[in-house]
Amino acid sequence: MAEEAWGKWGSDDERGALNQIGVEEVKRALGLVRNAKVMSLAQPLSPQTPVPGHRAPMQHFMGRDGGDYAAGGKRPGGFQFAEDTVIMAMHFGTHIDALCHAWHDDRLYNGFSSNGTRSTTGAARCGIEKMGPIVARGVLLNVMDDSGKALTKGVPVTRARLEAAAAGAGVTVERGDVVLIRTGWIETMLTDPHYYDGEPGIDIGAARWLADAGVAVIGCDNFAVEAIPFPSGEVFPVHQLVIRGYGIALLEGLVLAPLAAAGATEFLFVAAPLPFVGGTGSPLVPVAVL
Amino acid sequence: MAEEAWGKWGSDDERGALNQIGVEEVKRALGLVRNAKVMSLAQPLSPQTPVPGHRAPMQHFMGRDGGDYAAGGKRPGGFQFAEDTVIMAMHFGTHIDALCHAWHDDRLYNGFSSNGTRSTTGAARCGIEKMGPIVARGVLLNVMDDSGKALTKGVPVTRARLEAAAAGAGVTVERGDVVLIRTGWIETMLTDPHYYDGEPGIDIGAARWLADAGVAVIGCDNFAVEAIPFPSGEVFPVHQLVIRGYGIALLEGLVLAPLAAAGATEFLFVAAPLPFVGGTGSPLVPVAVL
Amino acid sequence: MAEEAWGKWGSDDERGALNQIGVEEVKRALGLVRNAKVMSLAQPLSPQTPVPGHRAPMQHFMGRDGGDYAAGGKRPGGFQFAEDTVIMAMHFGTHIDALCHAWHDDRLYNGFSSNGTRSTTGAARCGIEKMGPIVARGVLLNVMDDSGKALTKGVPVTRARLEAAAAGAGVTVERGDVVLIRTGWIETMLTDPHYYDGEPGIDIGAARWLADAGVAVIGCDNFAVEAIPFPSGEVFPVHQLVIRGYGIALLEGLVLAPLAAAGATEFLFVAAPLPFVGGTGSPLVPVAVL
Amino acid sequence: MAEEAWGKWGSDDERGALNQIGVEEVKRALGLVRNAKVMSLAQPLSPQTPVPGHRAPMQHFMGRDGGDYAAGGKRPGGFQFAEDTVIMAMHFGTHIDALCHAWHDDRLYNGFSSNGTRSTTGAARCGIEKMGPIVARGVLLNVMDDSGKALTKGVPVTRARLEAAAAGAGVTVERGDVVLIRTGWIETMLTDPHYYDGEPGIDIGAARWLADAGVAVIGCDNFAVEAIPFPSGEVFPVHQLVIRGYGIALLEGLVLAPLAAAGATEFLFVAAPLPFVGGTGSPLVPVAVL
Repeated sequence: MAEEAWGKWGSDDERGALNQIGVEEVKRALGLVRNAKVMSLAQPLSPQTPVPGHRAPMQHFMGRDGGDYAAGGKRPGGFQFAEDTVIMAMHFGTHIDALCHAWHDDRLYNGFSSNGTRSTTGAARCGIEKMGPIVARGVLLNVMDDSGKALTKGVPVTRARLEAAAAGAGVTVERGDVVLIRTGWIETMLTDPHYYDGEPGIDIGAARWLADAGVAVIGCDNFAVEAIPFPSGEVFPVHQLVIRGYGIALLEGLVLAPLAAAGATEFLFVAAPLPFVGGTGSPLVPVAVL
Repeated sequence: MAEEAWGKWGSDDERGALNQIGVEEVKRALGLVRNAKVMSLAQPLSPQTPVPGHRAPMQHFMGRDGGDYAAGGKRPGGFQFAEDTVIMAMHFGTHIDALCHAWHDDRLYNGFSSNGTRSTTGAARCGIEKMGPIVARGVLLNVMDDSGKALTKGVPVTRARLEAAAAGAGVTVERGDVVLIRTGWIETMLTDPHYYDGEPGIDIGAARWLADAGVAVIGCDNFAVEAIPFPSGEVFPVHQLVIRGYGIALLEGLVLAPLAAAGATEFLFVAAPLPFVGGTGSPLVPVAVL
Repeated sequence: MAEEAWGKWGSDDERGALNQIGVEEVKRALGLVRNAKVMSLAQPLSPQTPVPGHRAPMQHFMGRDGGDYAAGGKRPGGFQFAEDTVIMAMHFGTHIDALCHAWHDDRLYNGFSSNGTRSTTGAARCGIEKMGPIVARGVLLNVMDDSGKALTKGVPVTRARLEAAAAGAGVTVERGDVVLIRTGWIETMLTDPHYYDGEPGIDIGAARWLADAGVAVIGCDNFAVEAIPFPSGEVFPVHQLVIRGYGIALLEGLVLAPLAAAGATEFLFVAAPLPFVGGTGSPLVPVAVL
Repeated sequence: MAEEAWGKWGSDDERGALNQIGVEEVKRALGLVRNAKVMSLAQPLSPQTPVPGHRAPMQHFMGRDGGDYAAGGKRPGGFQFAEDTVIMAMHFGTHIDALCHAWHDDRLYNGFSSNGTRSTTGAARCGIEKMGPIVARGVLLNVMDDSGKALTKGVPVTRARLEAAAAGAGVTVERGDVVLIRTGWIETMLTDPHYYDGEPGIDIGAARWLADAGVAVIGCDNFAVEAIPFPSGEVFPVHQLVIRGYGIALLEGLVLAPLAAAGATEFLFVAAPLPFVGGTGSPLVPVAVL
């Protein structure tokens, strides 16, 4: 159980379901572009960006700025410049989880020992630097309620709900897809101080249905893709199944309202996590081209 | 002088030459894909990644890792996870300079006051969050010497050299292009302790020629695009001209050898800086699709 | 006005009222020790330590820990070790303000231009590294209300209240003293989510009385020494007067309950800020020896 | 073997040899003061402070500075201020090692499991916050060579050398002392790029002699107290013996030249590590009062 895709792409594989995306999938994705409209699906990043209680907010420091020149800083050859440094958690803002991010029984996806993930080295296996850029078909599944309102905290998005959303959009979820699920939850982030206390999201049945369809990535406009609170006695069951069992990366914190407003259902999707060696995830900017 | 593109896209514009990329340019770029080969042009990022002397190395800290479980950490519901935090300069690894990065006479691109760039706020104008994703035609200009060796420190890449490279590749630099210049310099980074002491790169004539051709972004496989040491009495003249005058972002630290090895000359280029509010640049993963 | 001590210790002086402590004051302080009881007046420091809204919490990262060995880390020669890194604001926990911390009219204490305090260099003048260790007589003034309850938010501690507290303790505030004022406010820190919204503290009259008495440092068991909300139309008037005008450093976030419980009124006081070059303050551990 | 002081101060003890300092030791130390001359034994701390290869340099960022006001920053009520944030390793500059810093066989001082030291919590046992302020007799042992030159890399400071130094100074090492050993090594730090490649320092015999004498802390003007390179086949043998076996904290990176120049041999010593919860050490400012 829960080792569904282990060995599927070889015993050394660290990319998991990204292997579902082959040349034909990329070509098909490129062929979807109609208006050449380019959209970012990412949140802006700042110290004001909300974070869950166990993570620290981002910090942004200027190492040199316009003020330093206003105060008399030298300008050799007239040149002036500004630079800055950021401190941020990897699971911050719009980000993707590496396959080393979640597991159980001391085994990561594909059976790698979690003992290889250490303070001194980061993740020896399934780090974010193994992922590479993602170019695929993006599919938007809108599961907001019938009146167009955001789902509320804890509401599970079931397989039936995903199927209905796909049918409504006239799309079929296929191998290599990046499936983006719109619950409306992230629109509450900046106003709801309890944003991180729970969320609507997919349940285990929906997760398994997507995984068995061969999707490459599952994304959502919430902070952890799956419904929270969890079913009784379970903790992040979708993370455990999808990341560890199927080798499918989760894409969290997506901004999907503009994509929905543009009427997008399938589109070219491009995203590239920063290749932190041994990192467990990365903020990134997913791009849709309609 | 040196205000070449100010006002060209309106007095409030903060995106500069990215405005050169319109719907037609995106469509043309998408049409270049032949084999659907997806390539990253980015360096891996780690504490070992070299940095220039005035910047601190990246730091990567695990907030939770496999070792913590090996030492007895609790696993509620069986769940285990790892997470991490990074401290890094924005002009680190493969990165893009925002238009607020370099200027002179207290005026940024389009005339914005550099007094708006402060410790407390970052850049009020021309921050990296204004840039948005870049989808464009990528053009590779190989200016390594005739025997295929890297250019050496300080060697200026002139307009003539760029023209010859374009002719050799059978391409013409056009409006909206992302031009990537291969000097071979970055291949010395991991072995040459003096990597950051200087570099081959474009001179002011080459910069102006590219800018006047309407390119959207200029990239290079070195750390600052332009030749260092600078011409006598000047300091970062290309940065001043290109970023401030023309509103053209510079893309630095590119890994271009694999792209060259694949024989690429023109291709689909996609890159998306992280939208740090008020940031002066961003590490990113430029993607080429051949 | 408000330049009370400028020039008093020379035009180059950056230590201000610490100059009030001479050999005789140190000897007197040493002579106060009776029981050789050593007490820390500092808060423990952790990511859970509350911070005001505009500052980030401390972060504490293990670079190597016991878990890494449990997971299989190598032990050359049997040796194991742990190490860590901290990110923290200088005005965090129990800390002292350097004389460059607060000012007005672009002039610091002793007339130095605030233009010397820049992102690139920190404070060229009156940085925390100029302060040196403090060995002095400590005096505890308990201004909690008659029933022993903490003062409430905004309550001003006046000169009369300080005089009464001194009289009650049988001490006279003298030149070179480190005066520590106990309001009881810090005891609410861990339970009151509005701790940083305001505080009881000294008013401008009390501040001037202490300053004119020649005290070397003023400390308090709150976060900013002075009463907040401020008098109408004023912002940190005590900081402006005391730090800039008199060159007196403020010591904030003190834990004074144990000192009071021990019945201390005058004692040997030792504290030494970390000498960050150009720093605006420093967490530190003030020590009382009774 | 190597569990010399385990249980000596109870099975729950986390302060080790600091227990050697009792009321009488503090009183004796206070009685040593003659001239009331106060000296810092600490290095200044800045991004330029050298660090060993496996640690990152300190970073110092201004969150608000004079430049921001020069650029037009608001001054409510006229108030201006500057603040800053530091990123630093705990074993940086002049610092003290907590008893959780070094061990072997998965057991810390007093038998605590090293599994309690994790990324998520820091050290559950023997963290730096358990140490408390140190007020004791300081003893300076000058072991520089006869001509007053610094010892060279790898030179072991033996028991005989310490005994000779003590005899020369007319002091006897006693229970509760903080022994500071001057090799002259730190004076090479700013000029020798190989400073961290090795050092003169005490050998195991000297360490055991000091420990058996009952010293509370051993300090040195080098970066790791003990001689490096280590004896063949051993790695930090003194750390293992002294910290783990005897529960004696090591004080590293001391600046002792001014103390020696002042002719100090025994003096009042005061130091207080920052109480980072679960921290493995702390920068601090040791103070000598002569």
